[in-house]
Amino acid sequence: VYCFDEETRATKSAGGQWHGVVSPEWNIGDNPNGGYLLSLISSALSQEIAHPDPISITTHYLRPGLQDTEYQINIDVIRVGRTLSNVRATLIQAGKPRLEVMAVYGDLSQSVGVENEIPMIAPVIPAEPLCCDRTGDLQGIELPIMNRLSVRLNPEQSVSGESTEPVISGWIRFTDGREPDARSLLLFCDAFPPSPFGYLGNVGWVPTVELTVHVRQRPAVGWILGQFTTNHLAGGRMIESGALWDSTGSLVAQSRQLGLILDKP
Amino acid sequence: VYCFDEETRATKSAGGQWHGVVSPEWNIGDNPNGGYLLSLISSALSQEIAHPDPISITTHYLRPGLQDTEYQINIDVIRVGRTLSNVRATLIQAGKPRLEVMAVYGDLSQSVGVENEIPMIAPVIPAEPLCCDRTGDLQGIELPIMNRLSVRLNPEQSVSGESTEPVISGWIRFTDGREPDARSLLLFCDAFPPSPFGYLGNVGWVPTVELTVHVRQRPAVGWILGQFTTNHLAGGRMIESGALWDSTGSLVAQSRQLGLILDKP
Repeated sequence: VYCFDEETRATKSAGGQWHGVVSPEWNIGDNPNGGYLLSLISSALSQEIAHPDPISITTHYLRPGLQDTEYQINIDVIRVGRTLSNVRATLIQAGKPRLEVMAVYGDLSQSVGVENEIPMIAPVIPAEPLCCDRTGDLQGIELPIMNRLSVRLNPEQSVSGESTEPVISGWIRFTDGREPDARSLLLFCDAFPPSPFGYLGNVGWVPTVELTVHVRQRPAVGWILGQFTTNHLAGGRMIESGALWDSTGSLVAQSRQLGLILDKP
Repeated sequence: VYCFDEETRATKSAGGQWHGVVSPEWNIGDNPNGGYLLSLISSALSQEIAHPDPISITTHYLRPGLQDTEYQINIDVIRVGRTLSNVRATLIQAGKPRLEVMAVYGDLSQSVGVENEIPMIAPVIPAEPLCCDRTGDLQGIELPIMNRLSVRLNPEQSVSGESTEPVISGWIRFTDGREPDARSLLLFCDAFPPSPFGYLGNVGWVPTVELTVHVRQRPAVGWILGQFTTNHLAGGRMIESGALWDSTGSLVAQSRQLGLILDKP
């Protein structure tokens, strides 16, 4: 069993809720990574819903998650159609909601309509994974998650303010050989450094307020290529757009998030 | 009183729900426009929530709306913070949920964090509104909404399949002189023709499954410039990204939606 599956496994209780314990192995500093917390919900949803793939999933991050602490997930299936299911879910720890999710699940192996294609957006970064993994330390903040994920950032970009554009890109995969699937793309959309850092440097703390991921295709085996761009930053609010491609060059997911950039405490 | 405010006004009942009647004046054919239905919810939310501006709003379209029919909106305020409120809302007609919304409200006139700026993405279409309004008829489908909105599409693009890229752009405003505000940007993000039509022609019916809008700034008076691009289309599923700029050239909103392209009935 791979770490990601083991450490995101939610179990159903007799009352119909899902539960488990938040692992500290996916932390950034003392806080569980937001993509990891979302993966606890996607684990429960993939067991609860007949349609296999998350195709649109919006997460509101209400409060930080608590490491080494029990969680409960409540699922509310809103509508089950022939090709799509709509669902809401809430992750609760210590009596308080932490994540609110609204998702559309479907089956990416099936066509549901007109069979045209449109040229997909192409990545602008090297076609091969780069040589050096990101380390488990960022300016004194420990990154345990870097024992679980290999992230190889594009060396032509910067995470400390020397880039000419607010873009972060690179390759990502699980360290233990688990291959990517549709569910893991949700995690990969929230596992790169904030894209404003390339342009501005590490100017502050960047909490995600809301993240929406669209999964387009189940990925091929191998590395996933990610590229994240800050579209707008003003008044401490930023919008970041991201895209993931698989090892065959296919666009497999897109993301957009609203984040804040707060002064360091 | 302007048509948009009059025809989206929701009234609170003693039980705490909001209600009103869906106007047929914003129809596309026999169906109320999705952006108009969302505006019924934004009317209720703007009265219910202390924070004035929608800054992230995700809508799941579960079923078509019903024209000339009563609606009810249930609001569930999830969290009220100092700078942000998180809220859920459901629009119900004839006993069935039609739209599910999850939103973050804030105050766009206030800074909440680090005061850096990043160069915004620029539009690639003419800087002046174009000469001709879109008409109230599309290949035999009546468009009553075109009596409420002026939409001037870029004549260098096509809505019938001759474009080299799946992009639709143009200028938009209310016909009765109402100026744009943050709330009206939600409507404007869902009032242009589907962007695949430029590249593929009118290949089918394009229902929106999910739409997320991020509002960045309250717009200046005048026309709003919109640009919408299909990022991906396969298996009958499409992802479209959009952006709106105001008359001063400021980026005021971004959108992304998951749509289906279904065979014509």
